[in-house]
Amino acid sequence: MVGAGFGGLAFCQSFPKDRAEITLIDRQNHHLFQPLLYQLATAGLSDSDIAHPVRAILSQRRDITVLLDEVQSIDLPKKLLQLSSTQLPFDYLVLALGGVTNYFGHPEWEEHAPGLKSLQDANRIRSSVLLAFEQAENSAPAQAEAGLLNIVVIGGGATGVEMAGSLVELSRHVLRRDFRRIDPTQARIILLEGGSRLLPAMPEKLSEYTRKTLEQMGVEVRLNATVKSISHHQIETNQGNLEAANIIWAAGVKANPLLAKLGIPADPQGRVEVLPNLSLPGYPTIFAIGDNARVPWKDKKLVPGVSPAAMQMGAHAAQEILAQMESRTRQKPFIYWDKGSMATIGRTHAVAQIAQLKLQGFLAWVAWLGVHLIFLVGFRNKLSVLMNWGFSYLAYRPGARIIPNSPAHSRI
Amino acid sequence: MVGAGFGGLAFCQSFPKDRAEITLIDRQNHHLFQPLLYQLATAGLSDSDIAHPVRAILSQRRDITVLLDEVQSIDLPKKLLQLSSTQLPFDYLVLALGGVTNYFGHPEWEEHAPGLKSLQDANRIRSSVLLAFEQAENSAPAQAEAGLLNIVVIGGGATGVEMAGSLVELSRHVLRRDFRRIDPTQARIILLEGGSRLLPAMPEKLSEYTRKTLEQMGVEVRLNATVKSISHHQIETNQGNLEAANIIWAAGVKANPLLAKLGIPADPQGRVEVLPNLSLPGYPTIFAIGDNARVPWKDKKLVPGVSPAAMQMGAHAAQEILAQMESRTRQKPFIYWDKGSMATIGRTHAVAQIAQLKLQGFLAWVAWLGVHLIFLVGFRNKLSVLMNWGFSYLAYRPGARIIPNSPAHSRI
Repeated sequence: MVGAGFGGLAFCQSFPKDRAEITLIDRQNHHLFQPLLYQLATAGLSDSDIAHPVRAILSQRRDITVLLDEVQSIDLPKKLLQLSSTQLPFDYLVLALGGVTNYFGHPEWEEHAPGLKSLQDANRIRSSVLLAFEQAENSAPAQAEAGLLNIVVIGGGATGVEMAGSLVELSRHVLRRDFRRIDPTQARIILLEGGSRLLPAMPEKLSEYTRKTLEQMGVEVRLNATVKSISHHQIETNQGNLEAANIIWAAGVKANPLLAKLGIPADPQGRVEVLPNLSLPGYPTIFAIGDNARVPWKDKKLVPGVSPAAMQMGAHAAQEILAQMESRTRQKPFIYWDKGSMATIGRTHAVAQIAQLKLQGFLAWVAWLGVHLIFLVGFRNKLSVLMNWGFSYLAYRPGARIIPNSPAHSRI
Repeated sequence: MVGAGFGGLAFCQSFPKDRAEITLIDRQNHHLFQPLLYQLATAGLSDSDIAHPVRAILSQRRDITVLLDEVQSIDLPKKLLQLSSTQLPFDYLVLALGGVTNYFGHPEWEEHAPGLKSLQDANRIRSSVLLAFEQAENSAPAQAEAGLLNIVVIGGGATGVEMAGSLVELSRHVLRRDFRRIDPTQARIILLEGGSRLLPAMPEKLSEYTRKTLEQMGVEVRLNATVKSISHHQIETNQGNLEAANIIWAAGVKANPLLAKLGIPADPQGRVEVLPNLSLPGYPTIFAIGDNARVPWKDKKLVPGVSPAAMQMGAHAAQEILAQMESRTRQKPFIYWDKGSMATIGRTHAVAQIAQLKLQGFLAWVAWLGVHLIFLVGFRNKLSVLMNWGFSYLAYRPGARIIPNSPAHSRI
């Protein structure tokens, strides 16, 4: 079992106790609740609100050994994992390594436009955004560096929309009274989307509602905007150039690069082809799930890379392996149960699609809040997040805008 | 005004509104509640529980400008502060720069034995301690590196006692069920104190109680132990050598090195001599407070470097400056009001001295808890800390044991 994301944990939790010796390997010591990562990046929540130690989650499972380690390579025919300093043989393997930010062939952009996949990413973005305001305050009343208070978010999917909404609230409300020489509400938040509408996976009506709401909040939304190049504080698009001290990449995800080394056919996003039961072709005891698997769905679409899908695949892989261990022969195809999708736009605004139901506005926001709290691992985390949100809602003053290490001379 | 610690904030809060243009400079964007820093280092609390943005604390004070900057030098006669890229002239100055870890002439020990003065320090210690357990689990059942699960805490003052107690609880309770190949309760926590008793500032009876309680909890207390040298995972003392993957320095603090460059007489801990009203000799408009000032007290002792003292000095300096601004001539000497001292030893154990009252055990622990919550800046932080403590108390499962960036290949 490799990966302690939603898929990996769902596998562990749905596999019956004491029926196998399970080893769970992850390169982080925590499970990360990625859907709320944008709130860490925008100073609404803290590390420990959205990350939970894997060992704590599984401490009751004496049959599961957790290893903090990174898989270096996998020998499929020999059934052997190469870890950083040891080797681990296996009978069954589930690949749930998750994804990394996809720069579509431009790895050099990462330096200037960080993505949002880990605690470290989120802390980096938070520090950089907050430091830009600090630098503007320090250099005022002299002319500040061009674009110091501009923030460009690239990608109009759920992450980009949530980031942009959250950033505009940070500048318009949270930081409003904090500075004396600059006016934080003058910060420009620019959201670039390559397609013709935001949230392309949602119905068109909700995309339009999202765009209007963001614009009312103060976000500059630019549709059909394609990025030509990104360099230090500079971004070149088909609609002109922008200067911005903060450029955030929310435009795509691809599977962990380790998948590409397996010799299994994969799509451009690095997801490997799997059989209907999620096992790899030719390797009936090896499964790939979540962002690592390319699984067809209705209307020629693929099962989307969202946490409910990963969790369902994890549970399915557990059932398949259990059947094999019990020498039952049936191979059941995985069937995705679409629970809908949702995105929050800002305080009290969200959009949600649940089956045929389309929600927007306050009701969708309440639904979003409830769903995220229910799925957030760990009771303590739920309470803490609820408390933070409660405070934000009442007072617009998230308590998490700490720059852990902010030497004054560090330049963004 | 330089420094947003307890002294600097007390100055700002006690200086009347709109009577002066106040600039508060700190190299961090947050005020840090240092008395609870050890809980961050031992995974009991999170960054944002004990750090609060300075701007948020002072957002109502339109007369106070906060700058995230680092003072490079101070020209006392010219009344000029050199910041990282600008200069700032002043009429009055209060030096409240706080302290740094004191290695007593052995700066090379810092690399191997981190101190505990900043968020970064605490996060470094936490990651290193947790990674040692992870590495032991990874290398088991093979023989682990010698001393991997040993933790040596140097210094038997309040910080050292609190660290040792907290670490032994981490290994004996919090992590107890988290590993499969190693037994975390086998970790050795060794507390070294150079003097003949722990908590030398406390009455002897409480020192003895502290030692006994720590030993019952599983800490090895070594008194009269002096450190000869520290290198990578190695420490040489007059009582023999120890191997330990984690060595934590809690043996001393000295004033910010900037003070030494002022040309004002200072003691070995870097605290400058001040007049009875806390101003610098020869500079009636410049004050030093908190850990930056050497202030005589009763019985040939000095006012201790604790937060209540810093806060009282901050308020006093504000009164002195106000008097000068109003051309009142009186210079009042600073008089320290000793509110007592306390240290927590572990879950439900603490010692406290308040005037003639000596407390130990559960009652002292409740007092300790109450006092720390009252003084913790920010209502939200109080709630969050209370919640964390509540969970620890009920379930022994602090939720904060996250390694923000834990690549498996990073070696401690």
